[in-house]
Amino acid sequence: MSDSASLSTAIAEQTAKLNELRLQKDVDNGAVEETKKKLGELKKALGAINKANALAAAGSKPSSSTAAASDGKKRERVLLKTAKGTKDFAPAETSLREHIEDIVKECFKRYGGSCLDTPVFERKDILTGKYGEDSKLIFDLKDQGGEELSLRYDHTVPLARFLAMSISNFAGGKIWQVGKVYRRDNPVVSKGRMREFQQADFDIAGVYDSMIPDAELMSLLNDILTRLKVGEFTIKLNNRKILDGIFAICGVPGEKTRTISSAVDKLDKLPWSEVKKEMTEEKGLDPAVADKIGEYVKLKGGVDLLEKLKADATFTSNALAVDGIKEMELLFQYLEAYNVMPRISFDLSLARGLDYYTGIIFEAIVEASAPPGFTVNPSVPPDAAPAPAQKPKKPKKKTGEDEEEEIDESQVGVGSIAAGGRYDTLVGMFTAAAQAEGKKASQMPCVGVSIGMDRIFALLWPKWSEVQRTKGTDVYVMAAGDGLLVERMKLVRELRDQGIKTDFLLKNKPKLPTQFSASERDEVPFAIILGESELKDGLVTVKEQRWDITESGSKEKRKDEGTGEKVKRDELVGWLLARGAKRTVGDQA
Amino acid sequence: MSDSASLSTAIAEQTAKLNELRLQKDVDNGAVEETKKKLGELKKALGAINKANALAAAGSKPSSSTAAASDGKKRERVLLKTAKGTKDFAPAETSLREHIEDIVKECFKRYGGSCLDTPVFERKDILTGKYGEDSKLIFDLKDQGGEELSLRYDHTVPLARFLAMSISNFAGGKIWQVGKVYRRDNPVVSKGRMREFQQADFDIAGVYDSMIPDAELMSLLNDILTRLKVGEFTIKLNNRKILDGIFAICGVPGEKTRTISSAVDKLDKLPWSEVKKEMTEEKGLDPAVADKIGEYVKLKGGVDLLEKLKADATFTSNALAVDGIKEMELLFQYLEAYNVMPRISFDLSLARGLDYYTGIIFEAIVEASAPPGFTVNPSVPPDAAPAPAQKPKKPKKKTGEDEEEEIDESQVGVGSIAAGGRYDTLVGMFTAAAQAEGKKASQMPCVGVSIGMDRIFALLWPKWSEVQRTKGTDVYVMAAGDGLLVERMKLVRELRDQGIKTDFLLKNKPKLPTQFSASERDEVPFAIILGESELKDGLVTVKEQRWDITESGSKEKRKDEGTGEKVKRDELVGWLLARGAKRTVGDQA
Repeated sequence: MSDSASLSTAIAEQTAKLNELRLQKDVDNGAVEETKKKLGELKKALGAINKANALAAAGSKPSSSTAAASDGKKRERVLLKTAKGTKDFAPAETSLREHIEDIVKECFKRYGGSCLDTPVFERKDILTGKYGEDSKLIFDLKDQGGEELSLRYDHTVPLARFLAMSISNFAGGKIWQVGKVYRRDNPVVSKGRMREFQQADFDIAGVYDSMIPDAELMSLLNDILTRLKVGEFTIKLNNRKILDGIFAICGVPGEKTRTISSAVDKLDKLPWSEVKKEMTEEKGLDPAVADKIGEYVKLKGGVDLLEKLKADATFTSNALAVDGIKEMELLFQYLEAYNVMPRISFDLSLARGLDYYTGIIFEAIVEASAPPGFTVNPSVPPDAAPAPAQKPKKPKKKTGEDEEEEIDESQVGVGSIAAGGRYDTLVGMFTAAAQAEGKKASQMPCVGVSIGMDRIFALLWPKWSEVQRTKGTDVYVMAAGDGLLVERMKLVRELRDQGIKTDFLLKNKPKLPTQFSASERDEVPFAIILGESELKDGLVTVKEQRWDITESGSKEKRKDEGTGEKVKRDELVGWLLARGAKRTVGDQA
Repeated sequence: MSDSASLSTAIAEQTAKLNELRLQKDVDNGAVEETKKKLGELKKALGAINKANALAAAGSKPSSSTAAASDGKKRERVLLKTAKGTKDFAPAETSLREHIEDIVKECFKRYGGSCLDTPVFERKDILTGKYGEDSKLIFDLKDQGGEELSLRYDHTVPLARFLAMSISNFAGGKIWQVGKVYRRDNPVVSKGRMREFQQADFDIAGVYDSMIPDAELMSLLNDILTRLKVGEFTIKLNNRKILDGIFAICGVPGEKTRTISSAVDKLDKLPWSEVKKEMTEEKGLDPAVADKIGEYVKLKGGVDLLEKLKADATFTSNALAVDGIKEMELLFQYLEAYNVMPRISFDLSLARGLDYYTGIIFEAIVEASAPPGFTVNPSVPPDAAPAPAQKPKKPKKKTGEDEEEEIDESQVGVGSIAAGGRYDTLVGMFTAAAQAEGKKASQMPCVGVSIGMDRIFALLWPKWSEVQRTKGTDVYVMAAGDGLLVERMKLVRELRDQGIKTDFLLKNKPKLPTQFSASERDEVPFAIILGESELKDGLVTVKEQRWDITESGSKEKRKDEGTGEKVKRDELVGWLLARGAKRTVGDQA
């Protein structure tokens, strides 16, 4: 018995510790795993020596708190946690999330987009075969007698499905979506790499003139990242036509194109030697062919790189490659007009994993998460050294290779914060797949960008968490003495009816200091104190509260010995607005 | 072969018809089912007589459009549709969704709430045993080697799980959530009864004085529904303590309380005779006991009903019931101060299905969805006739009962648009379930409301769809002659940089009429026309476009023979703002 008691205590401590760890801003996954392991052992031990106690306990607790209790099985301790790779966003965090979303949505509207919202799950066959090697990461729903369903993996495929369904009455245009998508990947929560993550997509669908929609999209991305103040960023840009042209020139067999492409895509995380190994040993590519590819994908720069490629006779021998070059020339011309070129890095190593891209592909990264030696100003192209590598996914076996030295774990960051490209055939795939044999399937060319909201959150959070208020409450209504509860309620109601964010302490006769500290928790700028006699004279007392940020970066309430100002109650709203209280008028929107 | 060809055409037609039906504003489920059935038969026939053709077809279409193709199986026609009980919200619809969300969130903030965002799925054992008879409606995820997960069924249980996890460092307060929840119920999409639906929750957690948080919540609900202009609405209000007191008085065995309670909850959809049958035949309650219950649950009114109950000796013999009455007296007093009483109907037939409520329970309904004979002004209580019935779920066997006449299918509406109640033990269940044996579990009393955003959408949509613009684009930049593409890009960029929603036609040399009709599709108020010579003189031409609503309710562009106004380019922004173009400054938020 004493065994079980001590074990129970130990388990309680471990559970508490685990929950503490999970609530921390930057979750230490190592510590979490360790604590989980220990917890598991403890519970096993307890279960073994103490079945009887557990049974008794099941009877003694609320009948609906666990399934175990309701069907009378042995009590199973419920572990309080969110699912792997997901997290709760607490009020302080959602205030930043909202800030980011507001800017992104506002830019989407500024560019003439209209909003689409699709369901979180799709019929499984809609997602099947759209994501290449990553399809294994799709979350499926259990078959509970009905359709086979999966959680959406991105916003692009559901959009294409929507466009294919409405193709007869949709002329084309700009569509944006903001919502969560789901991938069964290995999460790094602290870096915003989640299994449930928020993506904001903007897509331009329809038949327009070459590269004009593409340029609009790059300009939109540039505006959004600038307004979000993510820090110095670069937009890596490439074109599937150029890449596939290169593969053809180097002699990659047609059926290997996509799989070799996804190997190249790993050059931002792995050194060339690793990527070459994947091409040759895993994917059976002739090493000579791999080396030829290596020469091309090392190249990056700007307009200068275009010139270099045009001067390359082997390269210009491929029609697809030449087509790609023409597109890039036109795009660069438009990006000059939009003043986006300074952000662009034309990078032949950019491949993007997804199958459905057919034209330009791009990816935005911030300096903080750039690999070592990465140049943020592409107008000065870097030397043609092999693409510098970040931490390899699996520990390297061999040592002494020159790429080894380039690995710098301290440089591992949030990765790309936005990415996208042109996909001209995806909608057509749906119309074809849904259509009768032989009939010509209608097409709808598209280009789009996805913004990784959680990665941007991870970048902005450290600074935000220091200075921002969680709530915008402007007024806190208090009373001394016997509480004046109903009078507080009535004034609160008046102020809220005028659109002023107002709160009060939900108690009958709270002490004045208690009410003040409640108002200080939310840094409420105006404290209104009600007094019996003043109310009779139609007056209230207002004390302004201000906070300063100390050198140490912490916040401190400004000393104020004053007793506050007496204000006529029927002039109160105007008085507050004049002193900076905000009137919200969402209902008049 | 001609067989298969004709079949294929028929299938294409049926598929198109099905998609059309699904895109309609009010989906006719009957027609959909019928079309699906026919489609199924056609496909079966085709499959049978034409395997060979199907195989050939699989080869001829894009390799990644279906799994069938990629693994070489027979081609399966992909049905383009969203999962059962879900829908895409197209741009016109999302504009209303956003309008509704803006008002709701703005009210949440006005009342001092802060935002929480939890994952869409939870560990299954978190949801287990919280929803009583409705637990069968929970969506589970497939076990893909990891945790057992389920889609959240509401926001209340995830909130309670969050509070239990952070109980050590959370003093209590107001928390709101807006997001989608999931139930495998029988959907009626046109009425906003969905399997995926948007709920907006506001909860007050923590130890405060009796009924003050509850009154705040009712006032919040009243404000939101008023600002949303849902039409005349009533808040039905009851208290679990009173209800359970009644059950005890009438002699319901303790273990039957919750199941009898969920029978009573059906009184807004079924006549008393049906409910009594469920109590007695299905749930084995003594008919005499059921009749006693019937006498009580027929009662509704306002403060007058409180007096009536206090005068009832049997009723006041039960301590729980008396406690409930005390709570309601206090609540009504506060609701007077908040001026909410005119909306309240104290209704003893309101029970709410969910297990976790422990105090007040409430439900908001609009007149449009009220059952016949329902009085919107509860200050005039209805006669104590049996609760009027709506359409029964299953066709009635017996006829000639008096309840029969009261069934009026034309009155079946969207049902309640908001509901909630007090749940003082749910958080404690989690802390207890996670805690060591014997230790005292910390409690956190809560009261909350859930607003059914999709039902409100269904109410407001018909009116909204007539008059509203989908987008707020203010300026459309055009050019005559050779297109002046780069000049258009540069002006568009200038205006967007000034926060003005600006768009243009993404073509090289579009005809002027084409550009005008593009601008008219979005009812853009300002058309700017660029001309070569004018640009040299630093001038642009602006034409204002206005639309009138005709008697028939349709929109018509106002005739305007003018050639527009010449404006100095460097004064353009001020000129536009002065004439009502809006400057968006989301990035300064």
